[in-house]
Amino acid sequence: MKTLAERILGGDILAAARLMRDIDDRMPEATEVLKQLYPRTGRAYIIGVTGAPGSGKSTLVDRMVEVFRKEGKSIGIIAVDPTSPFTGGAILGDRVRMQRHATDEGVFIRSLATRGCLGGLTRSTQDIANVMDAMGKDIIIVETVGVGQDEVDIVNLAHTSVVVLVPGMGDEIQAIKAGIIEIGDIFVINKSDREGADKTERELLMVLEMGKKREDGWDPAIFRTEAILGKGVVELVFGVYRHKQALMQTRAMEQKLKERTKVAFLQILQSEVMSRFIQKIEEEGHWEKIVCDLMEKRTDPYSLAQHMIGSEFGKADA
Amino acid sequence: MKTLAERILGGDILAAARLMRDIDDRMPEATEVLKQLYPRTGRAYIIGVTGAPGSGKSTLVDRMVEVFRKEGKSIGIIAVDPTSPFTGGAILGDRVRMQRHATDEGVFIRSLATRGCLGGLTRSTQDIANVMDAMGKDIIIVETVGVGQDEVDIVNLAHTSVVVLVPGMGDEIQAIKAGIIEIGDIFVINKSDREGADKTERELLMVLEMGKKREDGWDPAIFRTEAILGKGVVELVFGVYRHKQALMQTRAMEQKLKERTKVAFLQILQSEVMSRFIQKIEEEGHWEKIVCDLMEKRTDPYSLAQHMIGSEFGKADA
Repeated sequence: MKTLAERILGGDILAAARLMRDIDDRMPEATEVLKQLYPRTGRAYIIGVTGAPGSGKSTLVDRMVEVFRKEGKSIGIIAVDPTSPFTGGAILGDRVRMQRHATDEGVFIRSLATRGCLGGLTRSTQDIANVMDAMGKDIIIVETVGVGQDEVDIVNLAHTSVVVLVPGMGDEIQAIKAGIIEIGDIFVINKSDREGADKTERELLMVLEMGKKREDGWDPAIFRTEAILGKGVVELVFGVYRHKQALMQTRAMEQKLKERTKVAFLQILQSEVMSRFIQKIEEEGHWEKIVCDLMEKRTDPYSLAQHMIGSEFGKADA
Repeated sequence: MKTLAERILGGDILAAARLMRDIDDRMPEATEVLKQLYPRTGRAYIIGVTGAPGSGKSTLVDRMVEVFRKEGKSIGIIAVDPTSPFTGGAILGDRVRMQRHATDEGVFIRSLATRGCLGGLTRSTQDIANVMDAMGKDIIIVETVGVGQDEVDIVNLAHTSVVVLVPGMGDEIQAIKAGIIEIGDIFVINKSDREGADKTERELLMVLEMGKKREDGWDPAIFRTEAILGKGVVELVFGVYRHKQALMQTRAMEQKLKERTKVAFLQILQSEVMSRFIQKIEEEGHWEKIVCDLMEKRTDPYSLAQHMIGSEFGKADA
């Protein structure tokens, strides 16, 4: 009888899907399997694709997958959509896209819509990327909506970050651009047949010029695509390869990998330690008392947190 | 000689600004002052205002402030913009808006652009809201851009959440709406003179209809505004009051306050415990070893995190 980890490493897709469900549900067993898979991670190339809803990001990802598949690369897609618990959009989207690649065993798609507080989404994304990496996927594409702190954290997991814009959103988009400029290694102006593509590119160039010189020396590239027709996608994929090559040739890749490893570790440490605290509070049935004490100002959350940490850490220090 | 806390409680704006800088810089001293201020919190009414860049959100907030000021309310504004470290946009924006209210001592504005990983922004927003609350501000408006996990967490700090939309963004906006529908107590269609305002309202109503019945029984209200001319803003402010009243009359307010208190406590616990771990790793100079061990797969982040927690917590359990 093979273990779950062995089955996943052997390419068993059902086993991988089961582990991913356990990761979603925060089952402690999932962590044990992740430990076994970890030594087999670190080979996949991770591409982050971020863009506002309506930017055609998912279509673009599908087209990129077609190009990668023609080269025989195996693909994992993680679609992170923290805003869709209400409509169940992610799950529906998953099914639609699954159908498209249904006959292709080389593509594994997983949507993440679950959101708890305390940065759980970044941890889950990372765990699932580790599973896909261990499964032997050559390329993992992490697709995120919009720009928020967690989205930036998630994009930071990628080796190459692609930011998707669309023309014709006027000056209003400026604010978004300013925010995402620093996370983009590659910019895509999708739906580039629309009026305003030139203006968007000019504005983007201007914002890039204004920015401080990047430490890694990389000069962000801009591509125009019409994802729905597949136009410009091959060029984009080559752009990703060029960025990968540039990373490898400088010390930038090593630096990036070190930083990712550190951030990933801190995320896991954080979610593990918080699970432990929450479990302890719940087991002891202390929530009611904590909330009442705070609301009636018998204590403050700062002192209470320090006290709780102190009573756990204290003995180890002594 | 008065303490910093006493000076802040006495209305000293410079003292408050200094504490807020210390909060930004994560100075341990700041936490001591926050402890002293906490018993004086809990009186301010917190309004969250969220909307995409270009939705006219800041103008709308300024107009709402004018209405509140005419009623003699004192105001705190926290502008959360996690995406602007690159341009320093938040700081610039602060100055521009400060000028507008420069002669008005009843308005205190603070922008937050700092972003670290691990949910630091939510913690900072909360700490600063506590300072403004203790200063005696009647109303605190927390303004956030876009929709991401942290933005949702931040909006959850509010008693009333206002979501700002603009007409004419077509079907593409649907996705955003679906995501934010569940966090909005009040929806504003700003720039409502633009073509498509009726369509946007119809779509919004449809999405609201589709949604599951809210547990608190509140039926989200929709307002149309032209913030730049001040049109519709008085009605919106009354809408906020109506929501407040509805909260008070049901058990919903108590439930909301309990949930907020719990989430706020967990955020503080999390940032305190992580500071402690990070400090320990740095003091012992272990980062280099941790990162190397992980990259060379001598261990995995899951086991390492559990081991590190165990060696701190272990003795307390024994």
